[in-house]
Amino acid sequence: MSRPPEGYLGAEGRLTSGPAPELVEAGYELELADAVERALAAYDHLVVERRGNSIVARTDLGLPERVVIAGHLDTVPVNGNFPSRLDEAGGILHGLGACDMKSGDAVILKLAATLDAPNRDVTYVFYDAEEIEAVHNGLGKLAASEPDLLAGDFAILMEPSNAGVEAGCQGTLRVEVRTTGERAHTARSWRGVNAIHRAAEVLRRLNEYDPRTPVIDGLEYHEGLNAVFVRGGVAGNVLPDECVVEVNFRFAPDRSEAEAEAFVREFFAGYDVRLTDSAPGALPGLDLPAAKAFVAAVGGEVNPKFGWTDVARFSALGVPAVNFGPGDPVLAHKQEEHVPVEHIERCEAQLRSWLTS
Amino acid sequence: MSRPPEGYLGAEGRLTSGPAPELVEAGYELELADAVERALAAYDHLVVERRGNSIVARTDLGLPERVVIAGHLDTVPVNGNFPSRLDEAGGILHGLGACDMKSGDAVILKLAATLDAPNRDVTYVFYDAEEIEAVHNGLGKLAASEPDLLAGDFAILMEPSNAGVEAGCQGTLRVEVRTTGERAHTARSWRGVNAIHRAAEVLRRLNEYDPRTPVIDGLEYHEGLNAVFVRGGVAGNVLPDECVVEVNFRFAPDRSEAEAEAFVREFFAGYDVRLTDSAPGALPGLDLPAAKAFVAAVGGEVNPKFGWTDVARFSALGVPAVNFGPGDPVLAHKQEEHVPVEHIERCEAQLRSWLTS
Repeated sequence: MSRPPEGYLGAEGRLTSGPAPELVEAGYELELADAVERALAAYDHLVVERRGNSIVARTDLGLPERVVIAGHLDTVPVNGNFPSRLDEAGGILHGLGACDMKSGDAVILKLAATLDAPNRDVTYVFYDAEEIEAVHNGLGKLAASEPDLLAGDFAILMEPSNAGVEAGCQGTLRVEVRTTGERAHTARSWRGVNAIHRAAEVLRRLNEYDPRTPVIDGLEYHEGLNAVFVRGGVAGNVLPDECVVEVNFRFAPDRSEAEAEAFVREFFAGYDVRLTDSAPGALPGLDLPAAKAFVAAVGGEVNPKFGWTDVARFSALGVPAVNFGPGDPVLAHKQEEHVPVEHIERCEAQLRSWLTS
Repeated sequence: MSRPPEGYLGAEGRLTSGPAPELVEAGYELELADAVERALAAYDHLVVERRGNSIVARTDLGLPERVVIAGHLDTVPVNGNFPSRLDEAGGILHGLGACDMKSGDAVILKLAATLDAPNRDVTYVFYDAEEIEAVHNGLGKLAASEPDLLAGDFAILMEPSNAGVEAGCQGTLRVEVRTTGERAHTARSWRGVNAIHRAAEVLRRLNEYDPRTPVIDGLEYHEGLNAVFVRGGVAGNVLPDECVVEVNFRFAPDRSEAEAEAFVREFFAGYDVRLTDSAPGALPGLDLPAAKAFVAAVGGEVNPKFGWTDVARFSALGVPAVNFGPGDPVLAHKQEEHVPVEHIERCEAQLRSWLTS
């Protein structure tokens, strides 16, 4: 499709530079959403609705159970990895979005087009703006304005998870930890207080941090507390009066956002701590019947999801959800992004089997 | 005079932003140098020479001793403190350059114009570009290209020193101390190494630093080692693979630049240390006859100079030099820059007395 704009990292809702999200929606996902809408409108077994650049296509067979299968349409920016190429001998598809998550989108499209008589009603959701600031997220917008469109007994998000089930997701929050001092000329430094030197203790605590690895529904999560940015300084001959360490906390889904924030504030007790960003985790919910049935159908193996994904949005709506998509999550957002074709085929076959048998 | 360009800190040779130095020379100090040249050309007792925007005016009476009196023409940028204003009741002159160093320049101009028969030959030097990158410094250019123009038995630099003698100056150098790590997604931080966390030890050492205060020619100097900038970070969800702490070392004039650099490298042993900037100190030289005579003439009290000044350039040419100018050095580069009128009158009177009695 069109070349996406360059300039953002687009990592989990963090817009760093480049064109405004409006441009992305107007110029790029617009075309993708048009193509998806056109393709699905051709099928009589689907009711297709559009909201902005998100498409919701549903079967409406009056079946007692409904499953939601969702994928986002956008990618991170081009990074010398477009167009994609297929290594036929190795069975590997290389290129932007191969892993995160055009392959998952392809599985959804194929199922939507071909499953005209599933054993459960299915809602297929394609949404925009997952890779930029959370406020623009198409699934988030639907959840806020028309949650009924996302209603279901169970949801499957096609985020890369090695064609296996990754349950729940960890939460994430960011804080700025600030030290202050007093400016002075460095030639007379005893007249001031160096705020950068004061950050030594903040970094010392981070080095001493011992991550929790709680087991929830049989899955071991792994928390993490990391400085992601540090900045300070006024001029080459001035004692700096401020230093800011930006810290990202990844927390297991047995903590609420409020509990996670309280932990971080306690951890940095004595410092000025400002919350800048927060998103809840999602419990795996593997004890729920719909989840149990799905896991059993696709082979029984489940791993925890460490990264934050939109399963947390379904979880917040009361819909149990898992990640289940082709590709290795470690390759997401990387230049060398790629996916084994076998993952794509396996995801499709397992979902088809579960929805027809 | 004309409004100087805004946008640099101009602190001791550190250009941070704003128009190129060429603009300063072409647009602003050009006019100042023109005015000084015109003013001094009117006096038959002076031989006036111009190099770029620096003016050298000399008496040539064939006397056995020659003294150089120097001041720079530029200031740091306007900061809401122009034009200047005289508080007549308090006897204080406020405004840009009041302290650093238009008052000193005024003393030189008055002496140059009125001392037609001094007891020593005098070389009056007005130079440009002291407040920006060292490479543009007018005195430095003269020292490199025509050191004979600066020849003398003793030099006096009109840098603010509370109308007293401040001898020698401390050296200054800057290094970048770099830590490295390995990038990873913060949701799986155990796969990477956080370079910002590794900087904890760099800051710990800075906190443990114990400054030397050597006594040289009876003056107590005071060294200082300070982080002036810190930076690191890739994205809000990525373990950073690099962190840089920029450190400024102010060293007493009993160390050479090489010795100072060796000290810093040893202090940060185990880290990647890169030298980015270096300028030597100047020994006070108070044991030299010319310096002794001057100090005795102006009252005998001498303090050490902590900041770096152009006395180091005279020192490098083998000309003993001291700072002796109106104004408090702590006010230099500050918005509230000001000078007691009494300082200006005292400096002029003492120099006049020394050069005529």
